[in-house]
Amino acid sequence: MFQSFDDASEPAAGPGRLARLRERLAAEGLDGFLVPRADEHQGEYVPKAAERLAWLTGFTGSAGFAVVLADAAAVFVDGRYTLQVREQTDERAYARCHVVETPPARWLAERLKGGMRIGYDPMLHTVAQVRRFEKACAEKGATLEPVAENPIDAIWDGRPAPALGTVRLHPSELAGASPAEKLAKLEAALGKAGVDAAVLTQPDSIAWLFNVRGSDVAHNPVPLAFAVLRTGAPPQLFIDGRKLSNAVRAELSEVAEIAEPAKLAPALEALGQGGARVLLDPDLTADAIGRRIAAAGGVVVEGQDPVLLPKAVKNAAEIAGTRRAHLRDGAAVTRFLRWLEETAPRGGLDEIAVAEALERFRAETGALKDISFDTISGAGAHAALPHYRVTRASSAPLRMNEIYLIDSGGQYEDGTTDITRTVIVGQPTAEMRDRFTRVLAGMIAVSTARFPVGTTGAQLDPLARVALWKAGLDFDHGTGHGVGVYLSVHEGPQRISKLGTTPLEAGMILSNEPGYYKEGAFGIRIENLLLVTPAEPIEGGERPMHGFETLTFAPIDRRLIEPSQLAPADRSWLDAYHAKVAALIGPLVDEETRAWLMAATAPLGG
Amino acid sequence: MFQSFDDASEPAAGPGRLARLRERLAAEGLDGFLVPRADEHQGEYVPKAAERLAWLTGFTGSAGFAVVLADAAAVFVDGRYTLQVREQTDERAYARCHVVETPPARWLAERLKGGMRIGYDPMLHTVAQVRRFEKACAEKGATLEPVAENPIDAIWDGRPAPALGTVRLHPSELAGASPAEKLAKLEAALGKAGVDAAVLTQPDSIAWLFNVRGSDVAHNPVPLAFAVLRTGAPPQLFIDGRKLSNAVRAELSEVAEIAEPAKLAPALEALGQGGARVLLDPDLTADAIGRRIAAAGGVVVEGQDPVLLPKAVKNAAEIAGTRRAHLRDGAAVTRFLRWLEETAPRGGLDEIAVAEALERFRAETGALKDISFDTISGAGAHAALPHYRVTRASSAPLRMNEIYLIDSGGQYEDGTTDITRTVIVGQPTAEMRDRFTRVLAGMIAVSTARFPVGTTGAQLDPLARVALWKAGLDFDHGTGHGVGVYLSVHEGPQRISKLGTTPLEAGMILSNEPGYYKEGAFGIRIENLLLVTPAEPIEGGERPMHGFETLTFAPIDRRLIEPSQLAPADRSWLDAYHAKVAALIGPLVDEETRAWLMAATAPLGG
Repeated sequence: MFQSFDDASEPAAGPGRLARLRERLAAEGLDGFLVPRADEHQGEYVPKAAERLAWLTGFTGSAGFAVVLADAAAVFVDGRYTLQVREQTDERAYARCHVVETPPARWLAERLKGGMRIGYDPMLHTVAQVRRFEKACAEKGATLEPVAENPIDAIWDGRPAPALGTVRLHPSELAGASPAEKLAKLEAALGKAGVDAAVLTQPDSIAWLFNVRGSDVAHNPVPLAFAVLRTGAPPQLFIDGRKLSNAVRAELSEVAEIAEPAKLAPALEALGQGGARVLLDPDLTADAIGRRIAAAGGVVVEGQDPVLLPKAVKNAAEIAGTRRAHLRDGAAVTRFLRWLEETAPRGGLDEIAVAEALERFRAETGALKDISFDTISGAGAHAALPHYRVTRASSAPLRMNEIYLIDSGGQYEDGTTDITRTVIVGQPTAEMRDRFTRVLAGMIAVSTARFPVGTTGAQLDPLARVALWKAGLDFDHGTGHGVGVYLSVHEGPQRISKLGTTPLEAGMILSNEPGYYKEGAFGIRIENLLLVTPAEPIEGGERPMHGFETLTFAPIDRRLIEPSQLAPADRSWLDAYHAKVAALIGPLVDEETRAWLMAATAPLGG
Repeated sequence: MFQSFDDASEPAAGPGRLARLRERLAAEGLDGFLVPRADEHQGEYVPKAAERLAWLTGFTGSAGFAVVLADAAAVFVDGRYTLQVREQTDERAYARCHVVETPPARWLAERLKGGMRIGYDPMLHTVAQVRRFEKACAEKGATLEPVAENPIDAIWDGRPAPALGTVRLHPSELAGASPAEKLAKLEAALGKAGVDAAVLTQPDSIAWLFNVRGSDVAHNPVPLAFAVLRTGAPPQLFIDGRKLSNAVRAELSEVAEIAEPAKLAPALEALGQGGARVLLDPDLTADAIGRRIAAAGGVVVEGQDPVLLPKAVKNAAEIAGTRRAHLRDGAAVTRFLRWLEETAPRGGLDEIAVAEALERFRAETGALKDISFDTISGAGAHAALPHYRVTRASSAPLRMNEIYLIDSGGQYEDGTTDITRTVIVGQPTAEMRDRFTRVLAGMIAVSTARFPVGTTGAQLDPLARVALWKAGLDFDHGTGHGVGVYLSVHEGPQRISKLGTTPLEAGMILSNEPGYYKEGAFGIRIENLLLVTPAEPIEGGERPMHGFETLTFAPIDRRLIEPSQLAPADRSWLDAYHAKVAALIGPLVDEETRAWLMAATAPLGG
């Protein structure tokens, strides 16, 4: 099993560890310390050795922040984790704050006094983040000070060893381009941007660029590493040598100079001393990196990670691989859905059992490298929590006449999938059918959108909501995120949300996952992945338009649809989609599943 | 007539005036000078005495910019004016640039050399604008220098006298609140924002705040003036005393200290010397104002003009007045549309004659104070120019089987209107009907939108485009702008466009005007004004939702609609809208017009 359902939190240990941290801070003359969840790479997942926030506070969510002062401490989380943080932390030790209502910098500012010294680990905070905290400190006459050694690491007995996942070469027939080709384009882009070098700190950027994969963190097949691109010189790759076999090292050495991560700092200093103009992404790059370049005399040029956009725009090989992965995954999901429909009404299933079953169906493809994130498996009221993570303690049974929602994905060598299906066990209520149909209408509105070159995800996001808005409803998350190819299931810069300012380009992959959540009752989400299609004029039209190709193939529960609520064009889309699911997935499954699939994908009545 | 159809441009005078300006610059040791179209108030209209750009270059459009150097000069315009600028300026004197493709600051930077001194009039450029030019100059080692006297004014023989439009009191039963009430709320808001004062430079902000109207510029009934709001002291109003009758002066003196505009500078210095924190809007306020405050020791706090939002959110009296104005205007437009339908097919009408006729119908209401902007009256291919302004030279005849588009509005004491109707003279082609129906579908999608509290105009803008996008079509302007009440027909911050980042609030008025333009052939735009309705939960819904009330009542040409292309709900909306037009406007027009109106608003067939 790639997923663990254990609750790794140790809330009881929190107060003692906090007291030891405070002793340490006092010994170093610090009045406070910032504790982010992030590691040096600012990724969604961190290795065990970097789970400082969880070790210190007990909170194990994927996004959080703590501030520790001598006489106060607080943990900051977003709306996904307001319940979880209360269960996982000790309220006598930590105030629990909503990160939007009470941002950490403001909480800190309200408690700062002139002359106070607040420490932070400059490898764990981005340039932009440190700027915000520096401003808050300066306004109160306090100072924000980078520390040379993280005081948590100093007191963390039994800290796990660093992740040393073996690095594998990613076949170039799947990657579609060699590292040398990718590097040549990037070097040209850097030259055009007038910079001498660029620092890469995102593991998925580095994995994509050098056609390697790793296993240092959960679910994202990336090696933790840094890289420096240079115009007129080979790139430098900073990676723990113990992760490289001789063969991999030899291959990488063809295109890069390989060094230990500890050599990053001297390399940055060398760049600075040469007066280089060095590009870094202030929202992704550690503060220490910018500081080191500037201190040595270099010029920091802030801009987007130059790999983000080339990685987001998939090439023909990546698209072909992704299509294959989705057919394979769709067959596994279809077998699972049949099993679920037949098994759930008999009783005895709980959320963990169902998540385990789905992983088993995926594993039976023989190609599953990992799941692409922890499966969200929610029955009844749990389905109303968009980011619910089932644990042994929370796992609820699937009951008759309740909704069950499962959001999951697979990592295959040729592609990454992400799919959500919501099904009814037994009979739905009229309200469930109404809500499901509105969510489906929004999902179809995005799936069928045509849009001019230059259109952003922010412009498409409202299309997913209009049918809900008409009924006084909405959902509180974006409509979609970017997806990698055997890389991160969440990647930027493309996204369909209010914050999606990047124009969508042909070859980008995005999720399309509107939802509806009724607190304490039920939740709905329907998710397919979409590929942005090339900009071509529509017949009779005037402008080059993009559209979407749906990549995900699995039945959508027709029992939850109220056909009379769907526009004729939307009904046609659903019937055509289901016909395609039957045609593509039917040949990939056993006869019994195929018979079930034919019924599940029959045209809508009504 | 409030509209002039004369072409006031003098292209032939351009080169001579440019030569004299260059002499003057040389005498003052300047290597260049920036010439904006704006006056001190950054409004859409400027008084004749401020038409420096038009005097110098010949270009009379409502937005433009010139940069003059010793050996080069250029005029910068947006897409609306690329044709006009070529006709109105002398190409031997001026390069003509598209302001987006070649921004003035970039054009200038490409020609700057170290040590050059570029002058600008600091009362004519905003704080934000100067910042951009300073950056461009600094990068080339040149300096941007404010001038004490505008060199154009120094060489402008026969410069018109300053505008001295008489100021009138705006009745408080129409304004819905007294200046004292408005000032009390603003003072509280300034205190909460932690500032001691705020500078107002927008004439419509000042007119709204003090319940006055004026006539210094065309079509916007505002007096040119400045004001300074102060916490704990009465506001200062800087206005030419010759515009004030004794009665108006007495009324204004009750709430403000009145002084000549020349006293603004000393007042800013006094604020600065007192160390005051002074709010100003960097996108609207003259650079000179911020400089003066800072130079005297004050703290400039940048933020939105504090009047913008209170003015945009209309109170009950303003809404009631606006509804009355729209019924009155709708009756005039309906009489006009009947006249047009009966007269145009006989031949002999041209664009000017039609615009004159509409103004006549509006004048016959007995309540017309002005038109709210120069009527856009476009026949055939001219309708494809979204901002076409008809002149004696351009006025085209209305021909059979061609489209005619008219975008116009009235200023009444109780409200400001803005309406576009597109009609066919004779028979439309299938293409015209297809395009018209798609534009109408977009217009209806916005009219019927329900949206959660916090939704911005940017989120609604795509709804107006989806039907066009499906056919590979689009339009290159925003969907809607804010509208004042007997004030500017274009006001912020509310707007329905990609740039509309302000959440829509109950009481805001916006236009809803999608279009389609086929270059050289025909153009379509359909425009109603909308009022944002209060946030109330929809029955069975969960969230407080806004919606729109349509304020504009006049028939939409059914001959241009292809009913089979409209969704049933959209057809119902149109029929219900037309029934309401008939019910509300029918009683306000003569019997013959009423008979025509009943036919024009009959339910759609097909």
